[in-house]
Amino acid sequence: MTKIKPVGPIPDGYTSLDGELSVGGIKASQIVDQHGSPVFVYSRSLLDQRMAELKQAMPEQLDIHYAMKANPFAPLLKHMVSAADGIDIASGGELVMALAAGARHISFAGPGKRDEELRAAIEAGVTINLESPTECDRALRIGSECGVAPVLAIRVNPDFDLKGSGMKMGGGAKQFGMDIELVAGEMEKILKAGAKWRGFHIFAGSQALKADAIIETQIQTLELAGRLAEEAGAAPEHVNLGGGFGIPYFPGDEPLDITKIGAALGERLSNLPDILKNTRFAIELGRYLVGEAGVYLTRVIDRKVSRGETFLVTDGGLHHQLAASGNFGTVVKRNYPAAIASKFDDKPEETVSIVGCLCTPLDRLSDNAEMPRAEVGDIVAIFCAGAYGATASPANFLGQGPAAEILVG
Amino acid sequence: MTKIKPVGPIPDGYTSLDGELSVGGIKASQIVDQHGSPVFVYSRSLLDQRMAELKQAMPEQLDIHYAMKANPFAPLLKHMVSAADGIDIASGGELVMALAAGARHISFAGPGKRDEELRAAIEAGVTINLESPTECDRALRIGSECGVAPVLAIRVNPDFDLKGSGMKMGGGAKQFGMDIELVAGEMEKILKAGAKWRGFHIFAGSQALKADAIIETQIQTLELAGRLAEEAGAAPEHVNLGGGFGIPYFPGDEPLDITKIGAALGERLSNLPDILKNTRFAIELGRYLVGEAGVYLTRVIDRKVSRGETFLVTDGGLHHQLAASGNFGTVVKRNYPAAIASKFDDKPEETVSIVGCLCTPLDRLSDNAEMPRAEVGDIVAIFCAGAYGATASPANFLGQGPAAEILVG
Repeated sequence: MTKIKPVGPIPDGYTSLDGELSVGGIKASQIVDQHGSPVFVYSRSLLDQRMAELKQAMPEQLDIHYAMKANPFAPLLKHMVSAADGIDIASGGELVMALAAGARHISFAGPGKRDEELRAAIEAGVTINLESPTECDRALRIGSECGVAPVLAIRVNPDFDLKGSGMKMGGGAKQFGMDIELVAGEMEKILKAGAKWRGFHIFAGSQALKADAIIETQIQTLELAGRLAEEAGAAPEHVNLGGGFGIPYFPGDEPLDITKIGAALGERLSNLPDILKNTRFAIELGRYLVGEAGVYLTRVIDRKVSRGETFLVTDGGLHHQLAASGNFGTVVKRNYPAAIASKFDDKPEETVSIVGCLCTPLDRLSDNAEMPRAEVGDIVAIFCAGAYGATASPANFLGQGPAAEILVG
Repeated sequence: MTKIKPVGPIPDGYTSLDGELSVGGIKASQIVDQHGSPVFVYSRSLLDQRMAELKQAMPEQLDIHYAMKANPFAPLLKHMVSAADGIDIASGGELVMALAAGARHISFAGPGKRDEELRAAIEAGVTINLESPTECDRALRIGSECGVAPVLAIRVNPDFDLKGSGMKMGGGAKQFGMDIELVAGEMEKILKAGAKWRGFHIFAGSQALKADAIIETQIQTLELAGRLAEEAGAAPEHVNLGGGFGIPYFPGDEPLDITKIGAALGERLSNLPDILKNTRFAIELGRYLVGEAGVYLTRVIDRKVSRGETFLVTDGGLHHQLAASGNFGTVVKRNYPAAIASKFDDKPEETVSIVGCLCTPLDRLSDNAEMPRAEVGDIVAIFCAGAYGATASPANFLGQGPAAEILVG
C-alpha cells in the first residue's frame, strides 16, 4: 500500500462552475482551451481582496509595498502598482519593468548592484537601500558623475531574526545590509556628501506564519530604527520594516492572523519615540500579496501504473513549478495544494502521484495525493502559484520554454 | 571562528596564464572583458579530450550518444553532434535544436510527450522511446495519420537501480518507461501495426562514481534486454544501455574509472546471447561528456564583512547556477569546485563565502571556502558548469536574465 501524503490547503476564494475549478469566473477547461497548457492564471479579484483585507487590518499610517520579485508579470505588476503604495525592486531589470508599469515610489535592495544599475536607479530618483559602505561610496560617486543627488537609505543587518521564518535574513553574518555598528558612520557620510538620506530598510526574514513572531520582529525593528536614528542624530523620513508575512503551503499550515499583527503595530506606531514621530513606515510584501491569487493549470498527457503506483503525467512540470516540486529552498518534499481542476467538485477516490513531463525523477508535482479519478485530458491545478512560480523556475530546462500567463477577473 | 568548508576538486585540464585561469588559451579577465560577466565558458579541447578518453576506454562496438538536456548551447551542441554517435532528446524543443545542429541519429525519451511532439519526431524519423502503452497507441495513430511508419523503441522500467547514483530511475514505481511485464505485449502491438521496432531503452540511474556499480547495472541491463527479446521472440536492432557516468563535484569525490567499465562491458559484448548478436549498443551520456568542460565566471562586485564572516558578492548567482547553490536535487549544501580565476596561482589566505547578487539568502555559491584574497573586480570561477548550468537555472529570477555563453579553444 502506498502511503497517502496530504496536500496543502487550497486557498480561500476558489470556487467551481459546472463542476470545474473556475478562476475569475472562467472554467479551467476554457482557460486551457484558449491559452494553452500549462498556464499560470492570476485572479485580479483575489489580488484586490487580499489587499483590501490587509489595508483593513493594518494601521492607516502604514504603507504597503509590493516586492515585485514575487511576480513581475507585466499585467499583474501594473495592477499592483496601482494597488500598492510603492514597488520594491531587486535589480536593474526589475527597474525597467517597474517604470514600464508606471511605478513611481520605487526602492531598490540587493547585495550585488552593478554600477550601471545604480546609475539607472539614481537617474530615476529611486530610493537605494545601501547594502555596504563600498556600495554607499559607489552610489555617491555615480550620483556626482551624473549630477543627481541620490536618494539613499541604509539597509541594516538586524541583530535579531524573524522566528519561524522560511528564510532568515538577520541575526547573524549576512550578505544583506550593514552590520549595526557601521550605520552611524555611513549616515554621516551620506549627509556630508549632500545626498538625500531617506531612512532605513530592515528585513529580518520571510514566510512566517506566526503572528507573534512577526509582532516581536516589528517591535525589535522599530526599536532598532529609533536607536540608530538617535545615535546619528538624524530622524529618518522613511523606514521599511521588511516583510515576513507567510502564506500556507503545506498540510497543517494556518493562515497568518493579520488582524493581530495590525493591532499590535498600530499601538506601537501611536507610541513612537520623538525621533520617529514624523517618520513614514512601510512593510514590503511579495508572496503574501500575490501568492494565493495564482494557480498553475496543466493538462494530463498520460495516466500510467508502475509497480502499483498510479502516475498522472502532465505537460507541465518543475520548469514552471520548481518550488512545488520540492527543489527550491526546501529540504523535505511536501505537497503544495493541488486538485483535479476539471473535476473540482468530485470526491477523492484514488491515490496518485502527479508528475511533470521532464525526463528527470526530480519532476514531481504531488506525491501520493488523494484525488478524484483523472484521465488523459483532465486538468491539474497547483495552487499558491502566484508568487515565485514562473520566474523562479528554469523555464528553458529540457527545451521546454515558459508557460503562458494570464490575469483574469 | 568560521569553520572552513572545503571546495570540490577542480577538474583536470585547467591551467593558468600570467597567474590567471585560462580556458582555451584565453585568460579569465580577457573573456570577461570581451563577453561580459557572468559568462559560461566551454572548452572545445576539453570536450574533445573527454570524448577521446571515453572512446579509448569503451569497446569499439559501443555507440556514444550525447544527451543534450545537459547542455543545449547551439555551438556546443553542434560540436557534440559531430563528436557523438547520436543525440538523445527529451522534448520537441530539443528536437528543433538538434535538427538545427545537423543531428541525424536522434532518439526521444520523456514521460510526457505531447501529440505535436510525437508528430514532429515521427516525421523526422526520430527513434521514439515509448514510455507507456498509451503513448505507444498515440505514436501508432499519429504515424498512420501522417503516413510515416514510426521508429519505436520501448523504454523499460528496470527491476533494478544503479547503486550509489545521484538519481535513481529504476528499481521501483517510476514515471519512466514500462514495467517489464508490459513489454512483450507492446512489442507485439508495434510489430503488428507495421511500425519499425528499434529495440530497448533501459536507464537505471545517473551520476554514479563507482565503476563497480555501473558494471553491475550494465550486466543487469544486458541480461534484461536479452530476456525481453527472447520472451517476445524478436531481436532488437538497438539497445540503449542508459548512462549513469558521474563526475566529481564535491570534496572527496573520485573520478570514475572508465577503463574498468570499458573492459567489463567489452567482455560482455563479446559474449552475448544469440538473440543480441546483431544488436548495436549505445550509452547515453550528458553530464559526463560536457560537465567538466565548462566554467562559470562571475565578477566580484562587493567585498564585505558581517559578524566576522567575509563575503564576496558577485554579479552572478543561482539564476545561472542553481545546482551549485545547493538548491537543485541536493539536500545538503556542499561546495562545488571554485577558485578566484583572476588569482588562480595564488595560495589561499582567507576564508570567504561567495554569494550571488540576488536578494535571497538561497543565493550562495560557496560557503566558507579558503581562497586567495580577492577584491572588487576580481573574477570567481565555479567549475563543473558545463552541464545542468544555464538551462537548469531560473535565468529570469529577480529580473536578471541569462548569462553569456561561449565555446572556446
